[in-house]
Amino acid sequence: MVDYIGIESIQKIVARSGPAAFIEGLAREIESDYRRWREFDKSARHAIHSPVGVIELMPTSDGRMYSFKYVNGHPKNTEVGLLTVTAFGVLADVGTGYPLLLSELTITTALRTAAMSALAAQWMARPDSSVMALIGNGAQSEFQAIAFHRMVGIREIRLYDIDAKASDKLARNLKTMQLEGLRVVICRSVLEAVKGADIVTTVTADKRNAIILTPEMIAPGMHINAVGGDCPGKTELHADILLRRDARVVVEYEPQSRIEGEIQQLPADFSVAEFADVLNGTAPARATPLEVTIFDSVGFALEDYSALCYLHKLQRADAQGHPQIDLIPHLDNPKDLFGLLATALPVAKPSSPQTGKNPQNTATQNLVEMTQ
Amino acid sequence: MVDYIGIESIQKIVARSGPAAFIEGLAREIESDYRRWREFDKSARHAIHSPVGVIELMPTSDGRMYSFKYVNGHPKNTEVGLLTVTAFGVLADVGTGYPLLLSELTITTALRTAAMSALAAQWMARPDSSVMALIGNGAQSEFQAIAFHRMVGIREIRLYDIDAKASDKLARNLKTMQLEGLRVVICRSVLEAVKGADIVTTVTADKRNAIILTPEMIAPGMHINAVGGDCPGKTELHADILLRRDARVVVEYEPQSRIEGEIQQLPADFSVAEFADVLNGTAPARATPLEVTIFDSVGFALEDYSALCYLHKLQRADAQGHPQIDLIPHLDNPKDLFGLLATALPVAKPSSPQTGKNPQNTATQNLVEMTQ
Repeated sequence: MVDYIGIESIQKIVARSGPAAFIEGLAREIESDYRRWREFDKSARHAIHSPVGVIELMPTSDGRMYSFKYVNGHPKNTEVGLLTVTAFGVLADVGTGYPLLLSELTITTALRTAAMSALAAQWMARPDSSVMALIGNGAQSEFQAIAFHRMVGIREIRLYDIDAKASDKLARNLKTMQLEGLRVVICRSVLEAVKGADIVTTVTADKRNAIILTPEMIAPGMHINAVGGDCPGKTELHADILLRRDARVVVEYEPQSRIEGEIQQLPADFSVAEFADVLNGTAPARATPLEVTIFDSVGFALEDYSALCYLHKLQRADAQGHPQIDLIPHLDNPKDLFGLLATALPVAKPSSPQTGKNPQNTATQNLVEMTQ
Repeated sequence: MVDYIGIESIQKIVARSGPAAFIEGLAREIESDYRRWREFDKSARHAIHSPVGVIELMPTSDGRMYSFKYVNGHPKNTEVGLLTVTAFGVLADVGTGYPLLLSELTITTALRTAAMSALAAQWMARPDSSVMALIGNGAQSEFQAIAFHRMVGIREIRLYDIDAKASDKLARNLKTMQLEGLRVVICRSVLEAVKGADIVTTVTADKRNAIILTPEMIAPGMHINAVGGDCPGKTELHADILLRRDARVVVEYEPQSRIEGEIQQLPADFSVAEFADVLNGTAPARATPLEVTIFDSVGFALEDYSALCYLHKLQRADAQGHPQIDLIPHLDNPKDLFGLLATALPVAKPSSPQTGKNPQNTATQNLVEMTQ
């Protein structure tokens, strides 16, 4: 049997600690995994693109555990009442190749992306940051808001979305969360939202080279958390922002970000640092309070590996037990896979119209017994 | 909800028609998909190797549906009572990116591999073939025997395995299947099994460059169905067999087979034909009755795509309904992913020790309402 976390289970697991504590715990798990960056098998994700979206597989392994995530990106889905992004993933044992956990990752991806964003901001943003602009108020926005309130100390969030209803929904959800001392302001333009912000988070879904942020919007000392630009032809920042002399760009896994990140707009020799280098102290996160720091986030398989390990721990800590599915067969004799089918076959319905009476079968029987 | 086929379901589905008819129906599905070879997105599978085994992802798509398979290969697993190969897969809608079916593929992979082997033999083996040597009597061997009896007209099968218990198990299972007019002979050596055989199927699991078949064992007109050699460093045939002047080698997807197939032993310019070319008549399957034909099979993603589509059809044809799992959330407002968590949150436990009483929250409330 394989452990299973569906939508009902993830609701229970997150409710136990609350989303903020869940995100912070997950961020610590992600941080400790990034600290052993070298141990992970890294590859750019496998993507199959269609005119309306993309379906991706994101595998990785540290030699002990293996994980992969299935994730799609279909911006027009919301028009027909479907999610832009759905995801699920599996955690497996490298030693046996057996899957251990199948989990939903649609909700979890939003949680882990927010955890990663806030973790990066803890290292890259000015320590006195308290105001964040949140551009794009769709499915992931609440998670970003909660993570930055809990982990970065954000106390004012400025919302903007081309869809005003999305901003209202976000404001309502944040209100019910009653986040301590959080001021939520709905703005009428990106410029209004960004003006005076310490941190700017862009988490839009449009699958094109959008220019959400333009150079004149960026003030010295800002940290930009660019989440939405995450596949070829999908970016959010004007290239000149990345090219500022005082800008410092950090990515997750450089080969993947060159293809999918904001830096896909720039020549391949444009200098970036990997987040693991920041953690290991080989690359500075921010040298001065006046630098513009940019976390060009696309989401890397390691973060899903961390999320699946984290979920599995939380699930197994539940004394009331947890769901499992019969995805993998259990055999007394592993060489007798067919035995599983044979037991289910109606004896009355052999492949042959004749039964044991036909001579060849008797012959077979004798031959077999003879050689035993 | 996502349709689900676990071990219990696959047992029921296969039992309805019996394994032989299931395999033949699947073979027809695979054949029709290979006939539209050009429509499929093809890539060599993604593999992560460890000292004890390999874990692979095999994605493909025809632009309408997307599928991938997770599969491991761990030859030493049987020593600890586990399967060498376990697998599962997903069928998804390219238009929305939503997964439609999650299915076990451990049993199904054995069924689809046998279907593919017999399908290739229908095209490549001499039409009068009636005797098959089956080298390697492990988990996949019954499926190969049933497929070749049903689809190729094999009436005598010669068994050999270094593990005599495996051969006895296979013989017993074939006896219970009561395959019409089938003679089963357990042999004491590969040579004894191969001598006089029209078709030789090798389906061994050992993860090394084994030499199961040597040149002197091969007679003119033989068809070799080489199933077990399917990853780098894992082969079954002596290279000289492939290099015979009268030999014709057919593979599934050349770029993958160059890495994983028997032809990994040969220079990259060694001439092979793809199975799709055989179907489309651009490459002959067999020119004369005296040629040695070799199906260098490694298993390609298209075959799992076919299997998942086939399973989904059979599952949905069951009037009694079928299992589903809550792997993907359903939302009334797809932009309100967070709403799924909010509903599950205990109202008594807000993220903040204070509740709505704190001034900022009131301020927030006013601001939000003001802008509405």
